[in-house]
Amino acid sequence: MKAIIITIGDEILIGQVLDTNSAWLAEQLQLMNVEVVRMSSISDEHNDIVKTLSEGLSDADLILITGGLGPTKDDITKKSLTEYFETELVFDQEVYLRIEKLLAKFGRKPTEAHRDQAYMPLGVLKLHNELGTAPGMLFKKEEKMVLSMPGVPYEMKYIFHNSFKPILEEKLNHKSIYHRTIQTAGMGESVIAERIEMVTDALPSYVKIAFLPSLGKVRLRLSGSHEDGKQLKTSIDNALNAIVEKIPELVFGFDNDSLESVLMDKCIAKGLSFGTAESCTGGNISARLTKISGSSAYYQGSIISYSNKIKEKQLGVSADTLKRFGAVSKETVLEMAKGACVRLGVDCAVAVSGIAGPGGATKDKPVGTIHIACSNGKHHMHRLLSLSKTRSLNIEYTTNMAILLALKFLEKHY
Amino acid sequence: MKAIIITIGDEILIGQVLDTNSAWLAEQLQLMNVEVVRMSSISDEHNDIVKTLSEGLSDADLILITGGLGPTKDDITKKSLTEYFETELVFDQEVYLRIEKLLAKFGRKPTEAHRDQAYMPLGVLKLHNELGTAPGMLFKKEEKMVLSMPGVPYEMKYIFHNSFKPILEEKLNHKSIYHRTIQTAGMGESVIAERIEMVTDALPSYVKIAFLPSLGKVRLRLSGSHEDGKQLKTSIDNALNAIVEKIPELVFGFDNDSLESVLMDKCIAKGLSFGTAESCTGGNISARLTKISGSSAYYQGSIISYSNKIKEKQLGVSADTLKRFGAVSKETVLEMAKGACVRLGVDCAVAVSGIAGPGGATKDKPVGTIHIACSNGKHHMHRLLSLSKTRSLNIEYTTNMAILLALKFLEKHY
Repeated sequence: MKAIIITIGDEILIGQVLDTNSAWLAEQLQLMNVEVVRMSSISDEHNDIVKTLSEGLSDADLILITGGLGPTKDDITKKSLTEYFETELVFDQEVYLRIEKLLAKFGRKPTEAHRDQAYMPLGVLKLHNELGTAPGMLFKKEEKMVLSMPGVPYEMKYIFHNSFKPILEEKLNHKSIYHRTIQTAGMGESVIAERIEMVTDALPSYVKIAFLPSLGKVRLRLSGSHEDGKQLKTSIDNALNAIVEKIPELVFGFDNDSLESVLMDKCIAKGLSFGTAESCTGGNISARLTKISGSSAYYQGSIISYSNKIKEKQLGVSADTLKRFGAVSKETVLEMAKGACVRLGVDCAVAVSGIAGPGGATKDKPVGTIHIACSNGKHHMHRLLSLSKTRSLNIEYTTNMAILLALKFLEKHY
Repeated sequence: MKAIIITIGDEILIGQVLDTNSAWLAEQLQLMNVEVVRMSSISDEHNDIVKTLSEGLSDADLILITGGLGPTKDDITKKSLTEYFETELVFDQEVYLRIEKLLAKFGRKPTEAHRDQAYMPLGVLKLHNELGTAPGMLFKKEEKMVLSMPGVPYEMKYIFHNSFKPILEEKLNHKSIYHRTIQTAGMGESVIAERIEMVTDALPSYVKIAFLPSLGKVRLRLSGSHEDGKQLKTSIDNALNAIVEKIPELVFGFDNDSLESVLMDKCIAKGLSFGTAESCTGGNISARLTKISGSSAYYQGSIISYSNKIKEKQLGVSADTLKRFGAVSKETVLEMAKGACVRLGVDCAVAVSGIAGPGGATKDKPVGTIHIACSNGKHHMHRLLSLSKTRSLNIEYTTNMAILLALKFLEKHY
C-alpha cells in the first residue's frame, strides 16, 4: 500500500510552525509496511487542497491530511473535502453534544463557531477524538481512503492510533518489509562507510543501507522488501551482525535505542545512581536524561552552575582552580564532576564547562571550546571538544558527547 | 516571487528524520517577501525528483532543494538535475582541492567517493559552502532558478545565507508584504477569538489573521499584501494595537519574542539575578532559559532535585514538609523556590514539582498534577496545573507556565 501525507496550513509555509505530524505519521505507516511516497505542505486554499488531493489519489491508495480544521481555519479542509467527494454538510447532533460536554468542563457554552464545527459531510465515517472537539473524517473512494485529522499533534495521534489504525490493519495484507537500525557515535559517515565497505558491497540487491548522520551520531539503517519474509530477515540480520563486527567500538545500540536510553539501562542494570553538573549546556543533559519515563530509577539530579559562584559554593570547585585555569578547563570540569558525586550523593556524574557561543570567547579559548569529564570520585575520564556550530547545535552536540563519555566510563570501570 | 521547497530523502519519508530545513527556509523566504506555495518531501529516486522539479517549475519561479547529495546518497540530486538541465558532469579541480584541504585538517585523504563528489554539472553556478565539502548548485532556466543544497542543516543555512541570499535579493523587486505577531499565553484560541472579534471582523480585506496555538501559548499573526506599503503597515499596526487593548493581560510580547527572551530582558532591565529548582521538568526550564545567548547576564543556575534527598540536602526542603505533604505539593514547591534563592544566591527563583507521567501517579495525585512556585524569599506566587498530555508535552507545557508565572511575579513585585 502506498500513502501520501498532506499538511494544510499557511503557518507552515511561512515557517512559523514546524510540521512534526508528517514525520510521526510516516513512522507509524512504515511500521505497518505502508510506503509513504510523498509528503506535501500546502496552503489553506481550496484549489490547492483539491489539486493536491486529486494528484495524490492517482499515486497512492491512502491520503492522510492534517490541519485546516477548526473555527479559526474556517474549516477549509472539511469544506474542500465535502466538495471534492460531492457530498454536503449536515448538522451532526452527536458532534455538537460532544462539543457542548467538553466545553461544560470548563464552565463554557458553545459559540456560533462551535455550531459550525458540528456540521459534518454526509456519508463520512467519523473517527473518535477523545482529546478535542473535531473528530477524524474518513472518506472512501473505490478502494482508496482519505483521512482528515486536526493539526494539533496529540489529537491527531489519538485519532490515528485509536480510531484509524484498526481500520488500516484490517485492510493490509502483510507484505514483507523489514528494517533494522545500528546506532553509532563518535565517527563520521564517510569513515564508517569505508570501514564497512566489504559488507555493504556484498548486500543482496533487495537490501539497502542508509547513513543518517546527526550531531556526532550516525544511524545505519538496513531496509528491504522481499516476497520471502524469512529470507529478508536473515539477510538483514546477518548484514547487521557483520557491520557490528567491523565497528564494534562505535556501536552503542540498535533500532530505537538512544544514548540516554542506553545510559539508563546500563545504570539500572549495574545499580548505579547518576547525576550531572552543567555549565554551558545549561541543564540540557539533565533534561534529555529525564525525558525518558523511568529515569528516576537511576537519575538523581544536577547542579547547573552557570555562574562561577555556584561552581564554588554548590559544587566545591576551588577558587584557586577557577583563578588559575579558568571556568573552561580540564581542571575545573574534573572538580565539577567530583563535586557533583559528593554533593548529589551519586555514584557517577558527568560535568561540562565550555563556551557555547556566539559570545564568551577569549584569546586562548575560542567559541566551541568545551571540556567534559566523567567521574565516580576515584576514576575519571576527560574529553576536550572544539566545535564550530551554532549555539544550540553546540549544546546538543556536547550533550551527545557527554552521554557518550559516560557510557565509555561505565564500560571501563564497571 | 513564488517558491517551492523540496526535500529529498527516504529517511524523511519513513519518519526517521524530522525535516527542519523546510521551515527554516520558508521563514527566510517570507522575510524576503517570497511566497512559498508548497513544500514537498520526496524519495531518493530519479523519477520522483524530475517529476517534482518539473511540476514545481510550472507553479513557481524559485525551487529550493535540500538533500540527496553526498557519497552515501550516490549524489542522486546532482545526477537528476544534470540530466534535467541537459548538461553533463565534469571533474572540478577547485571542488576537489577544497575537499582535500578539509580532509587534511583531520589528517585524512580523499577516497574514491570524494573524487566522485568533485564532479559538477557543466555551467552550474557553484555557491560556496564554508562548512562542508558539497557546494550549493544554482541552475537557471529562463527567469527561473533552481538551487540544490546539502541536507545537513548548518551547511544548508550557510549556503543560503552567505552565498544565495545576495543573488536572490538582487532579483527581487520589493513588493509590499507585511507581518506582525502578537505573542499571548494563558488562554485558548477560541476564547481569544471571541474577545477580539470586533477587531477581526473590521479588518480590511487585504489583512488576514491566523491563530497559532502551542502548549499554553497562542500566537496571533496579522499578515497582508498591498500595493501601498504604507497603508498596509498602518492597517496592520492599528489592528495590532486594537487587539492588545482587548486582551492586555494575555500579551507577553511581539514578533520573535519568546517567554524566555522576555524574562531575560525584564531581569536584565531590573538588575535581577534568576535561578530555578526543578523536579519533574528535569532541567528543561534551565535549558530553555540558557538557549538564548546572553542569558548568563541574569541567569545563575539551578538545582535539579529529581530525588527527595537532593530536595532536602541541596534546597533545604524540610523532611517534615516532604513527609506531610509529599514531594508534589504546594508546600514543597514553595520551599524549593525559597531554597533556590538562598542556595543559588539569586534574587528570584521559580520551582517545579509534579508528575510528568506516564508512571508515578498516586490516588490523590494523578499524572499531570504539577505545582509551580515563584519566590524572592519574601513574596511568592503559586500555581497548580492539571495536565493530560504525554510526558514530553507535559514537560514543555509546564516549562512555558513556569516562565509565565515568573513574568507575572516580576510584574507584580518589581
